[in-house]
Amino acid sequence: MNKSFRSIKILDTTLRDGEQTPGVSLTLEDKIEIAQQLDKLGVDIIEAGFPSSSEGERKVVKEIKKLGLTSQICALSRCTKKDIDAALDCDVDLIHIFISASPLQMKYAVNMTPEQVLSSAVESIEHVKRHGVKCEFSPMDATRAETPFLHKICKAAQDAGIDSLNIPDTVGCMIPRTTFELFKTLKSVVNVPLSVHCHDDFGLAVANSLAAVEAGADQVHVAVNGLGERAGNAALEEIVTTLHMVYGYQTNINTRLLYSTSRLVSSLSGISVQVNKAIVGENAFAHESGIHTRGVTEQPLTFEPISPEIVGRTRKLVAGKLAGARGIQVELNEIGIHPNETQLAEIVRRVKELGDKGKAVTDADLIALTSAVMGQVIGEEKIVDLCDMAVIAGIKVIPTASVRLAFEGKEYIAAETGVGPVDAALKAIEKLTNPLGKIKLSEYRLEAITGGSNAVAEVVIKVEDEKGNIVSARATREDIVMASVEAMINGINKCLLKNRVQGNKPS
Amino acid sequence: MNKSFRSIKILDTTLRDGEQTPGVSLTLEDKIEIAQQLDKLGVDIIEAGFPSSSEGERKVVKEIKKLGLTSQICALSRCTKKDIDAALDCDVDLIHIFISASPLQMKYAVNMTPEQVLSSAVESIEHVKRHGVKCEFSPMDATRAETPFLHKICKAAQDAGIDSLNIPDTVGCMIPRTTFELFKTLKSVVNVPLSVHCHDDFGLAVANSLAAVEAGADQVHVAVNGLGERAGNAALEEIVTTLHMVYGYQTNINTRLLYSTSRLVSSLSGISVQVNKAIVGENAFAHESGIHTRGVTEQPLTFEPISPEIVGRTRKLVAGKLAGARGIQVELNEIGIHPNETQLAEIVRRVKELGDKGKAVTDADLIALTSAVMGQVIGEEKIVDLCDMAVIAGIKVIPTASVRLAFEGKEYIAAETGVGPVDAALKAIEKLTNPLGKIKLSEYRLEAITGGSNAVAEVVIKVEDEKGNIVSARATREDIVMASVEAMINGINKCLLKNRVQGNKPS
Repeated sequence: MNKSFRSIKILDTTLRDGEQTPGVSLTLEDKIEIAQQLDKLGVDIIEAGFPSSSEGERKVVKEIKKLGLTSQICALSRCTKKDIDAALDCDVDLIHIFISASPLQMKYAVNMTPEQVLSSAVESIEHVKRHGVKCEFSPMDATRAETPFLHKICKAAQDAGIDSLNIPDTVGCMIPRTTFELFKTLKSVVNVPLSVHCHDDFGLAVANSLAAVEAGADQVHVAVNGLGERAGNAALEEIVTTLHMVYGYQTNINTRLLYSTSRLVSSLSGISVQVNKAIVGENAFAHESGIHTRGVTEQPLTFEPISPEIVGRTRKLVAGKLAGARGIQVELNEIGIHPNETQLAEIVRRVKELGDKGKAVTDADLIALTSAVMGQVIGEEKIVDLCDMAVIAGIKVIPTASVRLAFEGKEYIAAETGVGPVDAALKAIEKLTNPLGKIKLSEYRLEAITGGSNAVAEVVIKVEDEKGNIVSARATREDIVMASVEAMINGINKCLLKNRVQGNKPS
Repeated sequence: MNKSFRSIKILDTTLRDGEQTPGVSLTLEDKIEIAQQLDKLGVDIIEAGFPSSSEGERKVVKEIKKLGLTSQICALSRCTKKDIDAALDCDVDLIHIFISASPLQMKYAVNMTPEQVLSSAVESIEHVKRHGVKCEFSPMDATRAETPFLHKICKAAQDAGIDSLNIPDTVGCMIPRTTFELFKTLKSVVNVPLSVHCHDDFGLAVANSLAAVEAGADQVHVAVNGLGERAGNAALEEIVTTLHMVYGYQTNINTRLLYSTSRLVSSLSGISVQVNKAIVGENAFAHESGIHTRGVTEQPLTFEPISPEIVGRTRKLVAGKLAGARGIQVELNEIGIHPNETQLAEIVRRVKELGDKGKAVTDADLIALTSAVMGQVIGEEKIVDLCDMAVIAGIKVIPTASVRLAFEGKEYIAAETGVGPVDAALKAIEKLTNPLGKIKLSEYRLEAITGGSNAVAEVVIKVEDEKGNIVSARATREDIVMASVEAMINGINKCLLKNRVQGNKPS
C-alpha cells in the first residue's frame, strides 16, 4: 500500500450518538470527564449533545463549551428554528444539522415531501451561517436516498454555505465497495470537505468509514468503544489505529491514550467491551495456544499486528489447555517460580488435563498444580489461608462480614460493613492484610452472568501492596460472595509470593 | 449492487480457533451441544478441534464425528506425521493442515527455511491424500508472506492434491482493498476452491472476508460471536446476514437460528457479547431516541436495515432521557397502560428529567412515575411489596435467605437455601408467589461490573407465570443481592399487572 501523507480529522460522537445507546445515561459530571479525556486524546471535534432534546442536555453542551478545550465543540440540531436556536444558545463552534433524505424516512419519519426537505435544509443552513457559526450538514439515511435527490440536496447545502458535508449510513447497510463509489461520485458533485458517519448493523462500520477515506473523505465520525444507536458507530480506537498503522495516515490522536479512554467510557457508560473486541478488548493482546505463546515470546510480531504499547496496553499470556510450555513458563516466571524442564512438562500435562474437563485454568489452579509438581518448594509459599467467613445482608440490615485468616501459624479475625455483602467481605479481608504489607483491592471485576441465579460467577481482581506491586487473580464459583473472597485471597497470596521472591533476590 | 446468484460455503471454527479464545475451555458435552446446534444451523463444515493438542481434544473430535451430522467434520493439523495421524485416527471428513509462510513466522515460530516449509507442506498434503481424506491447506500468516513464495507454496499445494486452499490473515492486518487484490491475483495462479480466514485485530475481519468473496473466494471461515485468538475471527452471524441481505448470495444457514446459536455459545463459553455487537448484541434491534422510536413504530425499516425476525430476534423500545413519546407509549401499552396525550407528555417530561440526573430509567421507574402521573389508576396495580429480607452466607454456612412480602393487605413469609445468597433470596421469593400464579425465574442476567467492590450492579431478569406469560425487569443497586431481589419483585409486579389487564379484557 502506498503510504502517502494524509491527515484525517476525527469527530467523536460518544457524547451524542454514543449516549443514544439504549440504557446509557450520563450525568453532567460524567460528560465533562469524558470531554476532557477526548480533548487529551486529541479528537478534533467533540459532538457534545443535542441541546433541544432536554434542558439538561442544553446545560451539558454549554458547560462543555465553557471548559475551553482545544477540541472544537459541536451540537446536533434538526432543521427547525427551535433546535438551531437551542444550539446557538450554547455558543458552540459548529452546528451539525440533519434531515431525512431517503424516500422511506421522508415519508414515515418526518412526513415531508422531497421539496419540503430541501427547502427546510437550505433555510436552516442559512440560519446557522447568518450567525457566523460553522455548519456541518447530514442528509440522514443518505445511503438509502435516491442518488439524484442526494446529489441535489448536497449541492443545495453547498450553495447555502455549509463548511462540511457528512454522509450518514444511518442503518448501516453499506459495504466498503459501495461506500467507496458513493464518495468517489460525490467528490465530483460537490467541492466541500466530506465526512462519513457509519453504523455497525452488519459489522462493517469501520471498513465502510475507511473506504470513504480511501475515496477522499476528510473526516470520520467515531464513538469510543463503538457506542451508538443499535449496533453502534465506528469505533474510535479501530479507525484511528488502522489509519495510523495500516494506511500510514495521520490524525491528531495520541494512540497511547486509546485504552485508558476506552476504560473510562466503559466504566461511566456501564457498557462493557467484549473480551474479543479489537484493540481494547481484554483478549486483544492475549495469547493462550502453545504455537502462539511460543511465537510471541520469541518475537512478539509473529502473532501480533502491532505492539500493544502503541495503544497503551501490555501483552498477556494465559495458561489453559491449549497453552504451550513457553506461555506457562513465562507466567510462572513472572511470579518468581522457575520449574526445570521435566517439572514444566508435567505442569503443562496437568494444565491440559484440567482444561479437558472444561475447567478454565485459574491462577490458583496453576499455582496449586505447580506446587504439587514441584513438591515443597511452592507448598511453603502458600501464605494466607481463609479459615472462616460469614456475611449477612438484607433490608434494614447493614451488610456485614466477618473473616478469620491463618498466616504463618497465627489466626487473625476482623469484621467490616459495606454497601453489600461482597464489599463488606473484601473490606474485612483488606483490614487483615495490614501486618502483611497493606494489600489493597485496586480493581474488582465481575464478568457478566447469564443463566439462572445459580450460574457460575467469575471474579477478576487486582490487588496492590504498599510497594506498588500489582497482581491480578481470579476465582470462579456459583456463589458471588465466595468467588469474590477466593479471588481476593488468591491475589493476596500471589502478591506475597512475588514479594518474597523479590526479597530473596539481590537488589 | 448486482445480486447475482452465488452460494458460499461456511466453515465454522468456533470449536477450534474459537476455543483458543483465552479463558475459554469447553467440555466434551459442551462441544457436542455446540456441534449439534451448528449442524441444525446449517454450517457446511465444522472444524471440531486440533486432535494432537491433547488426549481430550482427540476424543472430542472422534465423538463429534460419531454423531453422524449433516455438516462435514474437519480437524486441524500441523505439517507433521504425528499431527496428521492423530487427525486421521478421528476418521474426519477433512483435514485442515497449516504451516507458517511469512518470513517472520518461518524464522521465529517454526525455525525453518522456506525450502523446508515448502517440502514439509507437500509431504503432509500427500500423506493426507494417500489416506483418501479431503485436505484443506493454509499457508499461515499468508498476508505477511512474500508474494512469490506465497504463490509458489500455493501452486505446490495444488499439485500435491489439496481440495481447497485457505488464506489466513493470521494477525488481522489486511484491509478490504488489499484482500480483494490478493484473492484476485491468487485466482490467476491456482485453480482450486479458495477459502478465507480473517482475524479482527483492526475490526476488519468481516469486511476482509467479504472482500475475498467479492474476488472469488468460495468459502469463509467464521466463529460464532467472533470468538478466536486475540480479537477473534470473522463473526458467523455478521458474515451470513450480510451475504444474504446485502449481497443477495446464498448459504446453507438458517438465519432464524443465528440468535439462539449466539446465546448458546455465549452461555457455554462464558464469553458474553457486548450490547452494541451487530446482529446478536442486546441493543442491535433496540431503539431509545425519540426520532428513532417514532420512526420504527410508524415503519420499522426507517431505522432498521432488516427485520429482527430474520435473525431470530424481536424489536425492543427503551425508555430513557432521549426517548420520545411514541416509544414510551408503546412500552406502556405493552403492559396494558394507556395514558392520554396530556398524561403521556408529562410522563415523557419526567423520564427526561430522571435521565438528565444520569439515572438509567428502569422499568420500575417508568411504572412508578407513570403511576404518579395517572393518579390512582396504576397506584392500585402495584401488587407485591417487599417488607423484609435477610440473607446469610459464608464458609460452613448454607447460604440462606428469608423474605416477607405484602400482597393485598396480607403478609407472607418464607425461607430458602441456595448455592449463594442471590440464589437463596430469589428461591424464597419464588416460593411465595405460589398463591399469585406460580411465577418462576426463567432467566437471570447480571451485567459485568468493573470498578471497586462497591460498583453499581445491574440485574436483568425474566419471569414466567403459569400461563406462559414472560416479562423482563431490571434493577440497579450497589448491593448485588438487593439488586437481584428488587429486579425479581419488579418482574413479579409487571407479570401480575399484565395478567390483571388481560383478565379484564374480553377473551
